[in-house]
Amino acid sequence: MVESLKVGIVGLGRLGQRHAENLAQRVPRAQLVAACSPLEPELDWARDTLGVAHCYAQYTALLAHPGLDAVFLVTPTALHAEQIILALQAGKHVFCEKPLSLDLQDCLRVEAEAARHPELKVMIGFVRRFDASYRDAARKIGEGLIGQPYLIRSQTLDQNDPGGFFVRFAASSGGIFLDCSVHDIDLARWLLGSPAPRRVYAIGTNVIHQGLREFDDVDNGMATLEFGDGSMASFMASRTMAHGHETLTEVFGSHGRLTIGAGARLHRVEIADQHGLRHECTPDFYSRFSDAFLLEAREFVDAALGRGTLSLSLADATEATRIGLAMTQAMREHRPVDFG
Amino acid sequence: MVESLKVGIVGLGRLGQRHAENLAQRVPRAQLVAACSPLEPELDWARDTLGVAHCYAQYTALLAHPGLDAVFLVTPTALHAEQIILALQAGKHVFCEKPLSLDLQDCLRVEAEAARHPELKVMIGFVRRFDASYRDAARKIGEGLIGQPYLIRSQTLDQNDPGGFFVRFAASSGGIFLDCSVHDIDLARWLLGSPAPRRVYAIGTNVIHQGLREFDDVDNGMATLEFGDGSMASFMASRTMAHGHETLTEVFGSHGRLTIGAGARLHRVEIADQHGLRHECTPDFYSRFSDAFLLEAREFVDAALGRGTLSLSLADATEATRIGLAMTQAMREHRPVDFG
Amino acid sequence: MVESLKVGIVGLGRLGQRHAENLAQRVPRAQLVAACSPLEPELDWARDTLGVAHCYAQYTALLAHPGLDAVFLVTPTALHAEQIILALQAGKHVFCEKPLSLDLQDCLRVEAEAARHPELKVMIGFVRRFDASYRDAARKIGEGLIGQPYLIRSQTLDQNDPGGFFVRFAASSGGIFLDCSVHDIDLARWLLGSPAPRRVYAIGTNVIHQGLREFDDVDNGMATLEFGDGSMASFMASRTMAHGHETLTEVFGSHGRLTIGAGARLHRVEIADQHGLRHECTPDFYSRFSDAFLLEAREFVDAALGRGTLSLSLADATEATRIGLAMTQAMREHRPVDFG
Amino acid sequence: MVESLKVGIVGLGRLGQRHAENLAQRVPRAQLVAACSPLEPELDWARDTLGVAHCYAQYTALLAHPGLDAVFLVTPTALHAEQIILALQAGKHVFCEKPLSLDLQDCLRVEAEAARHPELKVMIGFVRRFDASYRDAARKIGEGLIGQPYLIRSQTLDQNDPGGFFVRFAASSGGIFLDCSVHDIDLARWLLGSPAPRRVYAIGTNVIHQGLREFDDVDNGMATLEFGDGSMASFMASRTMAHGHETLTEVFGSHGRLTIGAGARLHRVEIADQHGLRHECTPDFYSRFSDAFLLEAREFVDAALGRGTLSLSLADATEATRIGLAMTQAMREHRPVDFG
Repeated sequence: MVESLKVGIVGLGRLGQRHAENLAQRVPRAQLVAACSPLEPELDWARDTLGVAHCYAQYTALLAHPGLDAVFLVTPTALHAEQIILALQAGKHVFCEKPLSLDLQDCLRVEAEAARHPELKVMIGFVRRFDASYRDAARKIGEGLIGQPYLIRSQTLDQNDPGGFFVRFAASSGGIFLDCSVHDIDLARWLLGSPAPRRVYAIGTNVIHQGLREFDDVDNGMATLEFGDGSMASFMASRTMAHGHETLTEVFGSHGRLTIGAGARLHRVEIADQHGLRHECTPDFYSRFSDAFLLEAREFVDAALGRGTLSLSLADATEATRIGLAMTQAMREHRPVDFG
Repeated sequence: MVESLKVGIVGLGRLGQRHAENLAQRVPRAQLVAACSPLEPELDWARDTLGVAHCYAQYTALLAHPGLDAVFLVTPTALHAEQIILALQAGKHVFCEKPLSLDLQDCLRVEAEAARHPELKVMIGFVRRFDASYRDAARKIGEGLIGQPYLIRSQTLDQNDPGGFFVRFAASSGGIFLDCSVHDIDLARWLLGSPAPRRVYAIGTNVIHQGLREFDDVDNGMATLEFGDGSMASFMASRTMAHGHETLTEVFGSHGRLTIGAGARLHRVEIADQHGLRHECTPDFYSRFSDAFLLEAREFVDAALGRGTLSLSLADATEATRIGLAMTQAMREHRPVDFG
Repeated sequence: MVESLKVGIVGLGRLGQRHAENLAQRVPRAQLVAACSPLEPELDWARDTLGVAHCYAQYTALLAHPGLDAVFLVTPTALHAEQIILALQAGKHVFCEKPLSLDLQDCLRVEAEAARHPELKVMIGFVRRFDASYRDAARKIGEGLIGQPYLIRSQTLDQNDPGGFFVRFAASSGGIFLDCSVHDIDLARWLLGSPAPRRVYAIGTNVIHQGLREFDDVDNGMATLEFGDGSMASFMASRTMAHGHETLTEVFGSHGRLTIGAGARLHRVEIADQHGLRHECTPDFYSRFSDAFLLEAREFVDAALGRGTLSLSLADATEATRIGLAMTQAMREHRPVDFG
Repeated sequence: MVESLKVGIVGLGRLGQRHAENLAQRVPRAQLVAACSPLEPELDWARDTLGVAHCYAQYTALLAHPGLDAVFLVTPTALHAEQIILALQAGKHVFCEKPLSLDLQDCLRVEAEAARHPELKVMIGFVRRFDASYRDAARKIGEGLIGQPYLIRSQTLDQNDPGGFFVRFAASSGGIFLDCSVHDIDLARWLLGSPAPRRVYAIGTNVIHQGLREFDDVDNGMATLEFGDGSMASFMASRTMAHGHETLTEVFGSHGRLTIGAGARLHRVEIADQHGLRHECTPDFYSRFSDAFLLEAREFVDAALGRGTLSLSLADATEATRIGLAMTQAMREHRPVDFG
């Protein structure tokens, strides 16, 4: 009687495993029936830990799995557009990790293909929209608590990884603004009511990871964005924090301000000792947003089953890419970039 | 291949429904196969919302459900001892909401029955032991971060309920210390390493709910507890908070202090407006401990399946009742009560 | 044209020097004209640093200084009563550090002498009443912000002094409740509207400074106090904190709660580093209450010049001693102590 | 024996009165001997409240006061340069409120005149450098606590003034960046070690005070600043806050971050009521920096008496104006402005 959605997960890296666990154990009406990865040990993990019966090395083989309703793409960004399009053509609902693509034309191709399949749901994982605190803020703004919002300040600060994973990843990450700030861009658009962007400017510097220079990338960047309606946003992204992962967003309105995420608290524990009074911070984005990843999956599954609608669109994802690309250009060319 | 535990839920009031949802949707390896309630609408809810196939008005009928492995008792405290004993005699694992009983002899009878069924798991739901923050504090104490813990200050403050539910409930609640402080007593014992209690003293007052006087109960109480090893604890319980439900515990050690729960934050949202800088607070215990209720159920299910052990014992539950009873006596008689 | 008060300081220990500096440099209309100490280096300091012209080794000599209007007594508690009485008999206004005395009869003798000199002002230095935060709390209570206050929780936590000054000082300190909690007792009475005490109970333990046992004193103590009007107070005092000096008071009212001093912040600086997110704490009472010591001196000087009235009375000081003595007795005898 | 500095105050508006009170009552070795204002009531206030004996309507008359050692200029910015030069030519030490001037040539003329009088001290009142928290941060940076500082984020948020004083003041204020951000610019230079500026960009909007458009000014502005050594700064200034005056500065270093001023706490009082858990905020800059105004005056007086040196120079003030002017230009021309 309770209908369920048969899902296949594609990509079983660190984040992919988290999505898989959620789909297998915590998302009502989802059935994780298949997994796809080029790496055999990842498939073994899915089989042994989650009891996933059908494992595939090839994406096309997974798409051909009998009765499959939807795919969860947790794959390299460069593959997103093509994989989404193939899934749509195979009649599957699609969840795909952010960003949609680093290429604006690819974003538009995906939008076009999706338009041909209005019965299929496509969600790009802007996970922060599903966080209880961001949702609470959005609701308060909607209720008028802070009057007219006019300025967003949003920052994504990552704990320094001495191993420098993102340096090796730099060739394909799209740069700090597309990799990190794309979340903040999406938040700013969402919380300001999706005004049209007018002009962007950005600067950056390398503090620790000089290897990024080779890719014209930075480990700390800042950007300002003007919207057509007079509202503004300011962004900061960093790879070099000592204290943890901190996602902080301030929404300034004509009658008040909301701050989401100050302090980056890991738990509700405070320590008073020779270091003063302190608390530990979330070490990474997953410890900060683990509940949101779950709510995101639930919304997708329910929408695919016709029990609800998606709260964000492909056009939102395209717009985040468009603005992130302009930021990158502004930083590299030391000049503001205008939107048409 | 993945073994599962067939569970029946008994009692579908507000908290019972939360347990039922967890068992049905979020606890790996649990199967919610049956429900029991004297109220037909509650059974309808279980059937319609969670798809529970088998519903019973009588507890004995539920116990006779074929293949049932375990029961979850979310019933009035006065029924706990008898229901646990019946379940054990029927060969079922038992989870039961706290407190075990308001009667010390009943606690001991349950312990004796459980001793006859060493293969069955019995857990009393001292949910705070499963909260991520309390667990983190316990781990830090174990690692020696604050040296030797010697004093616990713990308070359970409930948001005022103008409807005064607990006034009507007073006849059977056992009083504020057994209803509220029993959690704090258990925490103090746990975090101090379960020392033997030596002496307790308590006072109280009625600020808003004068109807409690008739039951020799109060809406605000405080107690101090000395242990045999020289450590101490101080408790406060209140029914009359304006800002929400606040559970706060301080652990003082020879080299530092841990505070768990300060601020009672609902979300990670701060509001700056004409009221100053503020955040909203958790309105009730469930909004504070919802994750802990889930982890508690998982531990129980895993232990019943032989995949782990329980982290607290029936004796812990008996001891919490013993101390809570002594507090109540101390307050009523205006004198310290010594333990044997 | 601007009248001034000629003041002599008595006692130039650490706190005496702070009072002397305030009187010499920061209290309008005060003139620090004389100083008294049995220690020559202290008098040298007063002469060289503050330009105090007249220095005396004997208290009676200071009292005889021509034109002296007032004395500031920052001397051992055992001397307070006698010194106050001598000053009053010599026609001087008197400021005296807390506590008034450890002996209730001495308190009453001082009150009696003061009653014979209604033109002279006598102030016992319950400095916290002059702290901007405590004043703000008192004002808010007066305005009804939290409804009817019914419970005070107040704690004085001192940073551990490995040197153990207070162990050597234990013979004359009167014990932890009279030395530390006397401030909290005074605050509780003040913020609750000075209700009559009814019954007190106290417990304590020695965590680090075992040398206190010889004096029947403890390094950590807790007490509860019931008032005749049904309101209550809970106190904690400690000598063993790792993080600094923390004075925290909570006032619970029927419609809200005020907390004064949470976090014991030293500055407005927060540090995010490998220890998490933290701030440093006030190391001692003077760093916490330095502004209050100044405001206290200003009120005293203005009152002595007839430009204002004192906000606390000798009877307040006597009552704090009475309650502190009862706490000490309760702890030593393991029983509640009733007030007449 | 204790030498003193004879000071004349010029300008007795709100801030001038605060300076006058400090000089008269709280700055050791300062003597407030004269005052100058074109407004008779202001001079009456100085005479009656502070006992200032000599009052002048004309600045030149004050400069001619016999024995005058120094002037405190709390006058309109447009007068600063000329008044400083006249004072130096008259042989007086000069304290002058910020900013030095809105005209870069005037700044340089003042520097040149000061160079001709090396025996005279000139201080521009960048008061935040004297705040205990900012000083603590600077000390920690100097000690290497956060490694190499590379990014400053600093914001000055003013509580909305429905009366719109600054709209009427807009013609002469120099715009939001020179009026407000000039402090943040100075802080950024100070805390980063005074690197040379390379490029600035700025944007702004009008949220409430549309009357500012006529002056090409905004009520909310943001700017980014790149320095020649690769370090960066981001600034925000606002006139439209609901909660109070908030000055917040973050210093990001290679090993940690310092935040100064988060929360803008007025007192140490927290309120828990139907609005949640909250504290009140500093309503204006004076309630935030009153202690710093005092310490600033003390440093100036001591330096003028040869008892210490000034911690900031005229060149610092010139640089702050230079950068503030470039921000204003960048915002008006929608393009980055490079420094030569």
